[in-house]
Amino acid sequence: VPPALIALLTDFGLEDAFAGILRAVIAGIAPQVSVIDLTHQIPLGDVRRAAFTLWQARTYVPPGTIFLCVVDPGVGSSRRGVALIWERYAYVGPDNGAASYLMAGDGPPAAFELTAPEYRLDPVSNTFHGRDLFAPAAAHLAAGLNPERLGRRIRALEQLPAPLLEVRPRQGARGVLLHADRFGNCISTVGVLVDRGDHLALEPWLRQDTAITLPKQGLQVELAGGVTVPLGRQFADVPRGEALAYIGSSGLLEIGVHHGSALEQLNLSEGQPVRLEKRG
Amino acid sequence: VPPALIALLTDFGLEDAFAGILRAVIAGIAPQVSVIDLTHQIPLGDVRRAAFTLWQARTYVPPGTIFLCVVDPGVGSSRRGVALIWERYAYVGPDNGAASYLMAGDGPPAAFELTAPEYRLDPVSNTFHGRDLFAPAAAHLAAGLNPERLGRRIRALEQLPAPLLEVRPRQGARGVLLHADRFGNCISTVGVLVDRGDHLALEPWLRQDTAITLPKQGLQVELAGGVTVPLGRQFADVPRGEALAYIGSSGLLEIGVHHGSALEQLNLSEGQPVRLEKRG
Amino acid sequence: VPPALIALLTDFGLEDAFAGILRAVIAGIAPQVSVIDLTHQIPLGDVRRAAFTLWQARTYVPPGTIFLCVVDPGVGSSRRGVALIWERYAYVGPDNGAASYLMAGDGPPAAFELTAPEYRLDPVSNTFHGRDLFAPAAAHLAAGLNPERLGRRIRALEQLPAPLLEVRPRQGARGVLLHADRFGNCISTVGVLVDRGDHLALEPWLRQDTAITLPKQGLQVELAGGVTVPLGRQFADVPRGEALAYIGSSGLLEIGVHHGSALEQLNLSEGQPVRLEKRG
Repeated sequence: VPPALIALLTDFGLEDAFAGILRAVIAGIAPQVSVIDLTHQIPLGDVRRAAFTLWQARTYVPPGTIFLCVVDPGVGSSRRGVALIWERYAYVGPDNGAASYLMAGDGPPAAFELTAPEYRLDPVSNTFHGRDLFAPAAAHLAAGLNPERLGRRIRALEQLPAPLLEVRPRQGARGVLLHADRFGNCISTVGVLVDRGDHLALEPWLRQDTAITLPKQGLQVELAGGVTVPLGRQFADVPRGEALAYIGSSGLLEIGVHHGSALEQLNLSEGQPVRLEKRG
Repeated sequence: VPPALIALLTDFGLEDAFAGILRAVIAGIAPQVSVIDLTHQIPLGDVRRAAFTLWQARTYVPPGTIFLCVVDPGVGSSRRGVALIWERYAYVGPDNGAASYLMAGDGPPAAFELTAPEYRLDPVSNTFHGRDLFAPAAAHLAAGLNPERLGRRIRALEQLPAPLLEVRPRQGARGVLLHADRFGNCISTVGVLVDRGDHLALEPWLRQDTAITLPKQGLQVELAGGVTVPLGRQFADVPRGEALAYIGSSGLLEIGVHHGSALEQLNLSEGQPVRLEKRG
Repeated sequence: VPPALIALLTDFGLEDAFAGILRAVIAGIAPQVSVIDLTHQIPLGDVRRAAFTLWQARTYVPPGTIFLCVVDPGVGSSRRGVALIWERYAYVGPDNGAASYLMAGDGPPAAFELTAPEYRLDPVSNTFHGRDLFAPAAAHLAAGLNPERLGRRIRALEQLPAPLLEVRPRQGARGVLLHADRFGNCISTVGVLVDRGDHLALEPWLRQDTAITLPKQGLQVELAGGVTVPLGRQFADVPRGEALAYIGSSGLLEIGVHHGSALEQLNLSEGQPVRLEKRG
């Protein structure tokens, strides 16, 4: 059995040593455990983005991975700290909805509130639970601790609202734009899509449970202001500098520009509507 | 015994491969040693910030940690390279004061000038001692080298001035603001503070050696321009959008805004006065 | 034998989890392999910068290092994925010229097109070959896979044009500025230089094969607009705030300012001419 892996996800940024101190705490408790950074640059307090990023990463982490996720605008309030255990991975962090897309994808976890004083630093500060509470819990779990030792079993967990997505059998789907990546490609809530040659399958994701199949012939993607972009397979399907929609690497519909930035060129922003529908 | 850990702290940034090349050099010399990044985004040449960050991290690193700290505005001058050895950890880097808060916290180290040609790369460049001098020395130390092999023992080390802090028994303390973190919380020199219920203990830190105890009742925090903020325990003690002072995660007095940025909202900047005193 | 090392170089940035997901994929396939980040902040699609950074790092990585380099503006087109094997290291990534300075430095590699379906994820997306194609190939190689298993042997590889550099025996060299580092020091194509006391040797680098030796006496460095800066050994050779040229840490001529930014102070930019020549 390979040792467990801890995958870090925070909004700490990289200018302070906060992320490094998480690693230091883990190394002190579980020196044999590998740690990877997913990102430390989640926009400040953006729990939805954290939830999305965990969902995006979950397919690619090895079995036994522990997500140590500290996007925690509620630090210094009464929100709980939790360890959530699924078969393939675990989440350690605040109970604030960041794990809700994992739950939607893989069902309800075994959930434990982090209350046991043996598995936290002493004292616990009021502003840095990542260091004092969550990193120790994740490290002990990675070192093999039975999660029942971390605290009492709990049931109701915080949930984010499901992403906006309306699926219309035989017609298509209407969703919204989420964020752009560094390349200016904009991801949307329209998915999960699978390319089946002359059809697109739109499979359930998160709390959306309608599966439909659409003939590609005649499908188009309409953005805000009635702008339409062709549906392609890859960037090179359109000339350089032109926009297209395609199935992104997580199976969601994305808007991109071949050798360019869709975000800037099409003036896109979060929350704008995206329709994948038959022309006319 | 777990293998030693090297903790990196530099002002190299992450756009060039400089920090990665430090890791490459270490991996070539001591492949079994774990390496963590504290941060590579210390403001350019800011030795005081490096000293502070080392002080902040020192409590949380495992025994045997080697801080490889390259904030080195004097590269290409006559400043020395040193290895400083304490019981719990070591510092490898330029002798420019970056280790002086460690010294103030843990006393004088055994100090060695890095002169032995066997433990550096050949040739040594004039601009990248992190790669050619400090990373090899840290890697050899982490692999178990006796520090006496690195070069001759030295005594007088560079020191930074102590942070501005004036402690007044029975009255309080006057310090200054240091920097803000990514969240806009501003750390100050007023500390180290410990919450003792209805009293605050102000314990010695760095070269400040007066310990006092203050009743919390009637204490307030005054900033530049006579602005006062309440002293709280945690963000949720004030309504969203309001400011408070609290004991930060390193024990120093911090100014924050619940779900906001104190830096922006209160227009704070480095060096501004902070008074923790009885009202009136 | 120490286990292989994978060194990551991408233009993914650190705001998304893309770089973290590369590490997750590697950890799933080859958990025992160490991974270091050279940088993830290559300017978007800047294959030349990637090639330069690999060249810069190659001297300092341990034998057996695999460069997993994903600067891939051609993703979603017909460019090939390759594994290139030299004696000391390997390159895995797109065949787009990013490896051409490695080739110029160390000769032609054994080259394999990444076609074997067993060593990629299934399905392979059209936009994230780093995750689906290159990370698995690098991880399998690091775990000991014979590169012949990755796909068919190929010959002609993409090449970048050689950096602009004209060497004039007995006179000097004319090159151009490349990029600046975080400190504002600007690296140029004039090199590789070695300090031989009262002479400078200009040795071949990349496809430049004229070696010359120049007496230092009377040499000067001329920049755009006829600005000249003295040739020094290290920053402290000039007063604070003044500019100089010196042999940088990779052996290339650099322009710097002692305790300042040459980029800003001299208004430098990429492509500007740099002449290392006798005065008058």
